[in-house]
This record gives sequence, structure tokens and C-alpha cells, in this order.
Amino acid sequence: MKLTFSPASPFARKVKIAAIELGLIDQIEFVPASVTPTKKNEEYATAVSPVRKLPALILDDSTVLVDSLTIVEYLDELAGGGKLMPASGLARWQRRSEHSMLQGMLDAMLLCRYENLLRPENLRWQAWYDDQWDRAWTGFTMFEQRPETLSRPLDVTQIALTCALGYADFRFPDCGWRDHFPKLKTFYETMMMRPSVRDTVPPAA
Amino acid sequence: MKLTFSPASPFARKVKIAAIELGLIDQIEFVPASVTPTKKNEEYATAVSPVRKLPALILDDSTVLVDSLTIVEYLDELAGGGKLMPASGLARWQRRSEHSMLQGMLDAMLLCRYENLLRPENLRWQAWYDDQWDRAWTGFTMFEQRPETLSRPLDVTQIALTCALGYADFRFPDCGWRDHFPKLKTFYETMMMRPSVRDTVPPAA
Repeated sequence: MKLTFSPASPFARKVKIAAIELGLIDQIEFVPASVTPTKKNEEYATAVSPVRKLPALILDDSTVLVDSLTIVEYLDELAGGGKLMPASGLARWQRRSEHSMLQGMLDAMLLCRYENLLRPENLRWQAWYDDQWDRAWTGFTMFEQRPETLSRPLDVTQIALTCALGYADFRFPDCGWRDHFPKLKTFYETMMMRPSVRDTVPPAA
Repeated sequence: MKLTFSPASPFARKVKIAAIELGLIDQIEFVPASVTPTKKNEEYATAVSPVRKLPALILDDSTVLVDSLTIVEYLDELAGGGKLMPASGLARWQRRSEHSMLQGMLDAMLLCRYENLLRPENLRWQAWYDDQWDRAWTGFTMFEQRPETLSRPLDVTQIALTCALGYADFRFPDCGWRDHFPKLKTFYETMMMRPSVRDTVPPAA
């Protein structure tokens, strides 16, 4: 199977970390792809996904699976099930919900990035940027206040949170999240001891 | 259980249609909520979800479940499982993937709406609007070319597609999707024969 990939994408990184932790990394061929908004990648839109997002998993029979959570859960099932996502019960729905919040936080951080880099300077709207950034920041605040999410055995929430914090380091290096969220700082340092996390840190911008 | 709700939200509508079809509508109390970007709803951000999106399901023990897909799958399980989403197998992953594409299409349509209504007029960027709209349109094109997705027994893909087409009618009434996508037109007319769909059409803007 193939995974469309960019080392700068926090969503693609999430899948790569999961694939390493699940022991499936050798079964995946990584295919570089670029999907910047306003620079339409026609081939990607028609052959992979009309919404042009990374990553997508392309199975050997050409079935395309998106988005990153779907792919992580698919790989989890391939690896036997219940490894990074509980197979059933309320714990499963709580992980799904935590992951949705993290997905929303990362979407908001990407919108901040597009607002302050991609959009022409004279068309930027600070109130929009501030609103989106607040979603990510309030989300980090929520996880700081839920230390039980940080100390469980490795799961999809922790991988997604690591990718969100890593994306903050990558694109918003001055945001100072370590000063505000000491529990997240410790959590991140622990996660960085895993080769899967350390070896997938985005390259310097 | 309670569902945060607005009749204008296509994501909230998806859950309402699913709850009706699953026979669970009487167990849900609908709680009006407003989450417009740049107008921060502090209570929602702290008590419900830091990313401030509709809908959220609040269980009787105060557990919050987001997003709309998580809620639909949770309700599906409550109703016995495998009703709107296959319980296992490749069909399950295909539905998940189709739904992710529809979620991306709806997110793109909402970004168009924010660009052309919420953002101050002198800060709008046509290339951004066009790019986002293209994602939705290319997505509709894909479903038009996959008629097998339109004729299966009712599932989460069909409900999400109905909400996306209904949102096009609601917020982009001149886009002319019926002229371009005759199979989607017939599909939508068939879906509109269901009370769950007909009774949840957004009110006139």
C-alpha cells in the first residue's frame, strides 16, 4: 500500500508514527505529494481525493482511504485491533472524541498558517487568526487539565497531541506553549523518547 | 442525552437525520447553540468543546462526544450497530473514507461562506474562495461518477451527501448543481421523500 506524504504535514506524521508503532511501516510506500491551497494539484484531486488533503492511503486494489484517523484505525485493525484505539466500549468513543478535538485544533493551526503566510498580506484578518489560534490554545489548555489522557498506554489521542505540539514547534516556534502547559511539556519529552516520534519531527522550516 | 444544535448547521442536521432513522430521536434533547467564528462563545469553548463546532453530544454522565461522525456511529451502536455504517470489513473503511471526503467538502463550503459573508469585504481573497469551492464541486463530481454510492440501502455517506447538497441549496442557491449532476439530482429527490430529510431542511436564510 502507498501513503501520500509530506514531512511538513502533521496529519501525515500521525499516520507514520502509528505505522511504526504498529510494526507496519515496512508495508507502506511513501509517495511525496504537495497540496497547497490555491495551487491546485489536478492529479491529486481526480486520482486521490477531491478535497486535496494529506495523507491518503492507497490500497493495492486502488481503494483510497482518507483521512488520517480512518487510516490509523485501518492500520490498527490490520495489526490485530485495539492497539491504538480501544475496540469497543465508552473508552473507544472518548478516544474518538478526543481525536476529533485534536483534528479541529490542527485544522485551526493550519488556517492560521494559511492566513499569515499564504494569503496576500493586505487581505489578512487578525480577528480570524486570533479566533483560530484560540481554538488550538484552548484545546491545549483542556488536555493540560486532563493529565489522565497523557499517562495512559500509547493511543491515538497521544499521537495526535504529539503531532499538534510538534506542529506548534514547527510553524509557531514563539508561541511559548511549554511555559503555559508544564504537563504537556513533560508529556512531549516522554513521547520524544520514542524513535517513531523523534525520527518524524518535521525538518527545519 | 443532549445535542448542541443549530438548524443552519449541516453537521448537526446529519446527526438529526441519523437519530430519526435510527429511532433514537425521542432520547435526544436539542440544545440551541451559536458558534460563529470571531464571536467567541466562551461557555461552549470551556464546557463543550475547545474547537467550538456543532454538534456535540452530551451524555447523561456529562461525557462530551464530537464530531458529527463520532456521534452518528455512537448512535448507530446504541441502535444495535451496523445500521448506517457497516460494522466491519472493507465496506466499513470505504464508508469512513467517503464520509471524510464529504466532511472535507462541507468544511470547504463553510470556509467559502465565511470568506464571502463573515470576513470584511476589503479582506476577501477570490483565489481562496475559488479553491475551496472547487473542493466541494470536484467532490460532487466524484459522487456523480459513483452511482453505486447513491443506490445502496441508506447509510452515513448518503446522509452526509444529502446534507452537503442541502447546504448548497441553503447557502449557494445559484450554484446550479442540479444542472451539472443529474444523478445527484435524482438521488436528492429520492432522499427528500424521507420525513427525516424533508423535516430537517434548513429554514430560509
